[in-house]
Amino acid sequence: MSDLPKRVSLREVGPRDGLQNEDPIPTAAKIDLIDALSETGLRRIEAVSFVHPRAIPQMADADEVWSKVRRNDAVRYSALVPNRRGLERALAAGFTDLEVVISASDTHNRENINRSTAESLDALPELTELAHGSGATLQLIVSTAWGCPYEGEVPEERVLWVAGRGVAAGVDSLVYGDTTGMATPTRVVRLVGETRSAHPELPLGLHFHNTRGTGLANLYAALQLGVDDFDAAVAGLGGCPYAPGASGNIATEEVVSMVEDMGVETGVDLDALLDVAEMAERFVGHAAPSQVLRAGPRSRTVPPSS
Amino acid sequence: MSDLPKRVSLREVGPRDGLQNEDPIPTAAKIDLIDALSETGLRRIEAVSFVHPRAIPQMADADEVWSKVRRNDAVRYSALVPNRRGLERALAAGFTDLEVVISASDTHNRENINRSTAESLDALPELTELAHGSGATLQLIVSTAWGCPYEGEVPEERVLWVAGRGVAAGVDSLVYGDTTGMATPTRVVRLVGETRSAHPELPLGLHFHNTRGTGLANLYAALQLGVDDFDAAVAGLGGCPYAPGASGNIATEEVVSMVEDMGVETGVDLDALLDVAEMAERFVGHAAPSQVLRAGPRSRTVPPSS
Repeated sequence: MSDLPKRVSLREVGPRDGLQNEDPIPTAAKIDLIDALSETGLRRIEAVSFVHPRAIPQMADADEVWSKVRRNDAVRYSALVPNRRGLERALAAGFTDLEVVISASDTHNRENINRSTAESLDALPELTELAHGSGATLQLIVSTAWGCPYEGEVPEERVLWVAGRGVAAGVDSLVYGDTTGMATPTRVVRLVGETRSAHPELPLGLHFHNTRGTGLANLYAALQLGVDDFDAAVAGLGGCPYAPGASGNIATEEVVSMVEDMGVETGVDLDALLDVAEMAERFVGHAAPSQVLRAGPRSRTVPPSS
Repeated sequence: MSDLPKRVSLREVGPRDGLQNEDPIPTAAKIDLIDALSETGLRRIEAVSFVHPRAIPQMADADEVWSKVRRNDAVRYSALVPNRRGLERALAAGFTDLEVVISASDTHNRENINRSTAESLDALPELTELAHGSGATLQLIVSTAWGCPYEGEVPEERVLWVAGRGVAAGVDSLVYGDTTGMATPTRVVRLVGETRSAHPELPLGLHFHNTRGTGLANLYAALQLGVDDFDAAVAGLGGCPYAPGASGNIATEEVVSMVEDMGVETGVDLDALLDVAEMAERFVGHAAPSQVLRAGPRSRTVPPSS
């Protein structure tokens, strides 16, 4: 219990990872969503990705979205890039916090960017150099870190190999993504432990999906190890492309509600965030999976009948 | 990690706690549900409650349901009772595993059974005597143990007072119920720790709702303390009467999926349970909140596109 961090830093990924897995919404709605999120106390927002519009039409307007967002100086906005072309676009748009995603499983990486994991890793030093040369940081997000929707189990050694190649390429930080909610607490404890043993100085964040209901259990397991850097998506936006109807990212308001009650500060105003979650739900046009959005904060009471 | 129990005992509460919070379903469907659950490897099923049909019309056919259930000798079936009248009906029906529920918060107890918590506790020794005199066991379920939808916070001292009165009255075991999903892991750790200090020999089970998404995180916190007795409802049946659209009990298949992956045995066949979860969803006629029902077990893979 005493090992829990006093504070965690949340990165809001609803506008990118969330919306990427929803039917496209209007550009103006994306801008409104990012602007509203930036006023909730969240200090990091993944705003857009620079990917090919044929691959991900939901992000085709990334340049326009970013040019019209009302920048809050207290917020760090990041962009996800799949390759050198995307990274150049992100730099040209003025982003200084960049993320490149590589899947630990070959099949998933090929499906995403038509390359093997090793081929993506081979290109990583050039991307890092390019980012650093422009004064930007580059984070490596390792997706399918706890399992792959195509291959099933992904050996931990393979994930550690990808992480090690990232470190060797000079990335500034690492995030493990549980792309389809295959992590469970013991797996989190093992992979975080092994990664820290290998790379004790490397900043490590975790990105959980709630596809099988384990999102907050995994986050609690990580908190107990002192991990203080997590991704989450407002309203639990996003779903899962491999399982219609299943949940997407862990919901930011569920994380805030749980960890603040445990004495772990997030800096986020839960009521303000719930207003944005309602807005997000309206934009995507269907019930979002966030339970706190349905039930309200713990402090909500109802009048007795008599 | 090494503190996790090798095995947990799950009590399936979908037929009672789940269906009590759904629109009434036909008697034959209830019987089919219980019979199907009894073939999944689950060893305890809360089958019915003996409550006044005006209070809970969903359980008005308890006697008929129980008389027609195909009893599996490997399964212990239990019944919930609110008072002496219900307990007598349960004994007359042949139940030998009985549960009485008392809310830690006065307002919730009054709303449920029109008595203060203290008045319910005063009646408890008589109920215990009656149960034991008929060769039955009586479990005390303390609801609103981590918060009350009417009163908000419920002091831990009050929960411990209720538990202590139960022990003094001779109950055979104790379950804490997180009636509206207000528990978080640190609260679970505190209450379980204090209860064990006070009553080290008392069998203690936990009953979580996923109303605010924390159900499996709370369960993981309890597992780390060695708790090995949990309630759960197939498909996550039940919802929350105070928050339309919110989740009910933690879903049995989510629990099985997570803890089996962590090396904790349940004795339950996950595939068989998922078939029953589909049946349960069909019976209640709306999408159930179970994520594993949507996404399938961790082992489910999809073919790549190329």
